[in-house]
Amino acid sequence: MTLLHEDRLFPADPDTRSIAKRLYESIAGLPIISPHGHTQAGWFAHNEPFPDPAKLFVQPDHYIYRMLYSQGISLDELEIGVPELKNPRKVWRLFAQNYYLFRGTPTRIWLDYAFQELFDLKDRLSAENADSYYDAILEKLRTPQFLPRALYDRFHLEVLATTDSPLDSLADHLAIQQSNWKARILPTFRPDSVVDPEFMGFRKNIEILSELTGEDTASWSGYLRALEKRREHFKLLGCTATDHGHPTVRTADLSEHEAEKLYGAVFAGVATPDQQELFRAQMLTEMAGMSARDGFVMQIHPGSARNHNKLVYERYGRDTGADIPTATEYVHALRPLLNKYGNSPGFKMILFTLDESTYSRELAPLAGHYPCLVLGPPWWFHDSPEGMLRFREYTTETAGFYNTAGFNDDTRAFLSIPARHDVARRMDAGYLARLVVEHRLEEDDACEIARDLTYNLAKKAYKL
Amino acid sequence: MTLLHEDRLFPADPDTRSIAKRLYESIAGLPIISPHGHTQAGWFAHNEPFPDPAKLFVQPDHYIYRMLYSQGISLDELEIGVPELKNPRKVWRLFAQNYYLFRGTPTRIWLDYAFQELFDLKDRLSAENADSYYDAILEKLRTPQFLPRALYDRFHLEVLATTDSPLDSLADHLAIQQSNWKARILPTFRPDSVVDPEFMGFRKNIEILSELTGEDTASWSGYLRALEKRREHFKLLGCTATDHGHPTVRTADLSEHEAEKLYGAVFAGVATPDQQELFRAQMLTEMAGMSARDGFVMQIHPGSARNHNKLVYERYGRDTGADIPTATEYVHALRPLLNKYGNSPGFKMILFTLDESTYSRELAPLAGHYPCLVLGPPWWFHDSPEGMLRFREYTTETAGFYNTAGFNDDTRAFLSIPARHDVARRMDAGYLARLVVEHRLEEDDACEIARDLTYNLAKKAYKL
Amino acid sequence: MTLLHEDRLFPADPDTRSIAKRLYESIAGLPIISPHGHTQAGWFAHNEPFPDPAKLFVQPDHYIYRMLYSQGISLDELEIGVPELKNPRKVWRLFAQNYYLFRGTPTRIWLDYAFQELFDLKDRLSAENADSYYDAILEKLRTPQFLPRALYDRFHLEVLATTDSPLDSLADHLAIQQSNWKARILPTFRPDSVVDPEFMGFRKNIEILSELTGEDTASWSGYLRALEKRREHFKLLGCTATDHGHPTVRTADLSEHEAEKLYGAVFAGVATPDQQELFRAQMLTEMAGMSARDGFVMQIHPGSARNHNKLVYERYGRDTGADIPTATEYVHALRPLLNKYGNSPGFKMILFTLDESTYSRELAPLAGHYPCLVLGPPWWFHDSPEGMLRFREYTTETAGFYNTAGFNDDTRAFLSIPARHDVARRMDAGYLARLVVEHRLEEDDACEIARDLTYNLAKKAYKL
Repeated sequence: MTLLHEDRLFPADPDTRSIAKRLYESIAGLPIISPHGHTQAGWFAHNEPFPDPAKLFVQPDHYIYRMLYSQGISLDELEIGVPELKNPRKVWRLFAQNYYLFRGTPTRIWLDYAFQELFDLKDRLSAENADSYYDAILEKLRTPQFLPRALYDRFHLEVLATTDSPLDSLADHLAIQQSNWKARILPTFRPDSVVDPEFMGFRKNIEILSELTGEDTASWSGYLRALEKRREHFKLLGCTATDHGHPTVRTADLSEHEAEKLYGAVFAGVATPDQQELFRAQMLTEMAGMSARDGFVMQIHPGSARNHNKLVYERYGRDTGADIPTATEYVHALRPLLNKYGNSPGFKMILFTLDESTYSRELAPLAGHYPCLVLGPPWWFHDSPEGMLRFREYTTETAGFYNTAGFNDDTRAFLSIPARHDVARRMDAGYLARLVVEHRLEEDDACEIARDLTYNLAKKAYKL
Repeated sequence: MTLLHEDRLFPADPDTRSIAKRLYESIAGLPIISPHGHTQAGWFAHNEPFPDPAKLFVQPDHYIYRMLYSQGISLDELEIGVPELKNPRKVWRLFAQNYYLFRGTPTRIWLDYAFQELFDLKDRLSAENADSYYDAILEKLRTPQFLPRALYDRFHLEVLATTDSPLDSLADHLAIQQSNWKARILPTFRPDSVVDPEFMGFRKNIEILSELTGEDTASWSGYLRALEKRREHFKLLGCTATDHGHPTVRTADLSEHEAEKLYGAVFAGVATPDQQELFRAQMLTEMAGMSARDGFVMQIHPGSARNHNKLVYERYGRDTGADIPTATEYVHALRPLLNKYGNSPGFKMILFTLDESTYSRELAPLAGHYPCLVLGPPWWFHDSPEGMLRFREYTTETAGFYNTAGFNDDTRAFLSIPARHDVARRMDAGYLARLVVEHRLEEDDACEIARDLTYNLAKKAYKL
Repeated sequence: MTLLHEDRLFPADPDTRSIAKRLYESIAGLPIISPHGHTQAGWFAHNEPFPDPAKLFVQPDHYIYRMLYSQGISLDELEIGVPELKNPRKVWRLFAQNYYLFRGTPTRIWLDYAFQELFDLKDRLSAENADSYYDAILEKLRTPQFLPRALYDRFHLEVLATTDSPLDSLADHLAIQQSNWKARILPTFRPDSVVDPEFMGFRKNIEILSELTGEDTASWSGYLRALEKRREHFKLLGCTATDHGHPTVRTADLSEHEAEKLYGAVFAGVATPDQQELFRAQMLTEMAGMSARDGFVMQIHPGSARNHNKLVYERYGRDTGADIPTATEYVHALRPLLNKYGNSPGFKMILFTLDESTYSRELAPLAGHYPCLVLGPPWWFHDSPEGMLRFREYTTETAGFYNTAGFNDDTRAFLSIPARHDVARRMDAGYLARLVVEHRLEEDDACEIARDLTYNLAKKAYKL
């Protein structure tokens, strides 16, 4: 028995499956480009072993504990939010006995991949084998082959981007670059904490920004200069992209005077919710202007209602699986920014969505016209077999393949990176195979596209 | 010739079809759990024969006459809204000669099932055989095997829930329970008529509520106590669930004082439309509170613009096929209620939608986090083969199978119950077979899931 | 090698494909009904040769140059907006070397069809064969077989509708009808330029309307009479339909007095944006009233944000690929109009959408109830294989086949007409074949439906 079948995720029809296999085989060995994610540079800077299976798999993965919580398992029992796990084996057992909940989800696919490919486990995880799984994983984690750097090499990563606050010194990135280890681990400039007035600690963050840059962030011009300086610092360490996680994708194009006045209110902490939203909107346009100048690719991830569950937020903090997507409007919202920078040759923007109804209605038509726009891959809940298929089916006919940005794994779970890229490669191969078998595309074209989707388009979109 | 093929609704690919057949065969014989629907307890209390084919099939089924009306056939000719049909054979002929309109619709599948399985009819209904169909059905309806109780047993129903007004005495339910007939027919508490100020006769209904309970419904506290008393009455007769059919899913969490004042305006009949909406919102939260205490599972069916066609409403009344779905927002709307009761161990809520764009965007992410939430099956227009497939494809990857509530037939047409459950079992088998053949799930897991979707999850979700 | 495979677009499963082929073969030879499109009557009135490949294929087709523009190719290089191409061969080469961008898009399918079926070209277009393509096409364009009338006959067109301004004299239509050539080329009444106060030149257009009709368009009643007179003129030349391209589908039912006052503000050029929207809303209802009287079928195409890219609009004008779909609400918006005319026996309305989330949520339920409503085919970006499949999958179960209006090619590219109808016939055949193979429909029924979708329903919907 094995956990993974070699034909997994390919369409059932035999002709289509044969083509899908050929296409997949032509790309299966390509290096991984991981231009957007949430691994930590510190892992690679310090290269220390991952402590135990619970800490490695369960604790950082909100896909896992949101599902367990939805079935009445308490976050306390799972030791969520606890820095050091008191009883990792107990947490692991609880996870193992509820593993059936993940049937039909991508989490199951990613985990089985790691269990089999990395830990040589062959039986489905269950209450019965929870302990033997735990022991087998723990044993391997103590070997040199499972140190972060060894895994990076084993995963055949060509480049890995992290996501970082403008207030981060990037000392870990610097340490990696100054080490003898040849790897390309790049920071990404994510300024939410200093451009979103509703971000916890915003006012304090602006002060730190001032200290870091020597600019007077009490003034609008000083604040903008401070941001530019941090971007320069990120650029020195290889950064090529920014990332913006706003509740909406609203943009604005205020006059210098209006913007200055608005910043005054924000800085003084007296901005109304409407003014805070307007400030975020103006800041997207400011960031686009900076990108048009310094060449950073701008990523926008809108449309999540963060910390929806008040009790969970108050007890366990941010990013605990209670961020819920909402309907997102792009066409009117992006117009001010696009009217200002949408036709600028150096400017590039990657759009993501949690609202699949926008794929064919708004995103593909926008990306199929504006030279600055490409579509990011299916994001978050949609980074899944059906989600990937829908993304292609809903966007390709209007935007083509060449207005898309390849794949992102977007993960906090380092061990899931090869699994996620493998799923994307298989699903794209299956989608292309259907086009070939229905004579909508020739196989030589499909083969070239498969390589572009896997490798070239991500490098191009992120200027890597 | 037969109307039904034994492989109907299974995917075409031979391997997938074989698996689907095996999965279906393993569940085809399970009893029917029907936890939500609109059959009438009186049928089973009195156990009288259904009068004729037109009265049985055409008159109560808005799926049928909305389609006929859309093609220019008058509701007068179909004798809609007429208590006693003057010319049932004429109505039947009109239906039969337009039966081709139902090609590709679930109505056709349900009807053919009843025609063949219950009435042994083998030729497709048409103008030519309208009379012989009529005669054959009429003859059987006069036999003891076609009395309501006999059909209940024949359908292998284990439990059947009706939907009832708080003002209903539930005398029919009592009569059934006191009879010698062993069947489980339970009421469901549907309070729209006494919590929605826009419901026709609302003010009068509140008075009746007072009379029934002896509470002074002129006061906010008396009104709430009256509702609690009716819930207790329903509970005595086996009720386990409530049902709420609001235009939106907006909820509110007003202070005691605000709520009291708002009820004053509503009771006095001077509430504005905004206040009426706010009152419905507050009442959903009040009902959730009562559910957290008495254990009733709360069902919400939002998003229908009722009585859209003014002329049809004025001439033929409510529920005449002119209720039209609208875009529905869940994430912000449910927040007040969920912040109050979303983490309460005893509280359970089943969410339905007519807006499929919310499946992957809002509903699956909500149900995949909140312990109180499960997703109801595809509802109303979406209770169809494609609708069922989309439901699974859009929700499973985020919410899994175990945050869903099994199948509801939700029907007014008693004879369609086995047909509808059969469609659901076949479509789930086909969906699972695809996961198996694509090696996303093993067949033993799929087999267990098929049984859960068919039987266990409905019993669990409705506490049956 | 050929560009087109005889089995293209049919499902992969062998049984399904066999049925699809049989169904397709039964309809492949039917004449083309083209009741909605943007070809020019002048082509057929003057019957002059098309000048060159670039002018024929690239310049009029915003599907082509929006894609090229999205990849950074300048509209100047493509000579967009230039009346006479200075270097058509250079434009053609640029197009040919970027032909790979269209992989997976319907544009590629339409073009390959024209290249092979009309110009006998067999190799995929590329930079290498750009010149030989150009020469081969140019040579044919100079032959009598490629004159517009010859192509009309060759395409087996039975009727072709154009789209025309109320200010158009329809001289070309008259010339065609007075010629010896037997063809049915009909105008369509598209009044946006005289009913939308935001339309460029609106005020001037109203004056021309007055001159053409002798009515005093300064008054509300005179304005309405002028529109009626133009409709009468269109009717004389065979027109059977109107077409309305509003930003939303909002309708209104103002009193005579309110409407008169509103028109006063609009006529005086002092209407606010809200009043302009209200005026469009009122005019849809007025147009419905005129349709109820003169029998014109009313088409509504809402939901496009026109001229989204300001720079492109200012430099290159309207209809340059920068019209972007937006979320569209139908249920509340159409209520005033439907309450007034929705049950009128003579009134027919065809609804289109760019927002696919409305198919199952709003449009199919509306069309499955109102006798006046039918659904137009997938429109614009959705006139594609996946778009067509989704249209059927999302609408059939609720609205059936008989509340849909057959196919529209809606094209400015005359040579794409047979290609587009061929795609529609193949996709419908494939969809029906799936229903047959899954035993949801019998093959004789499917065969009849295929013929209805291809031929009968378009004739019926447009009263042709």
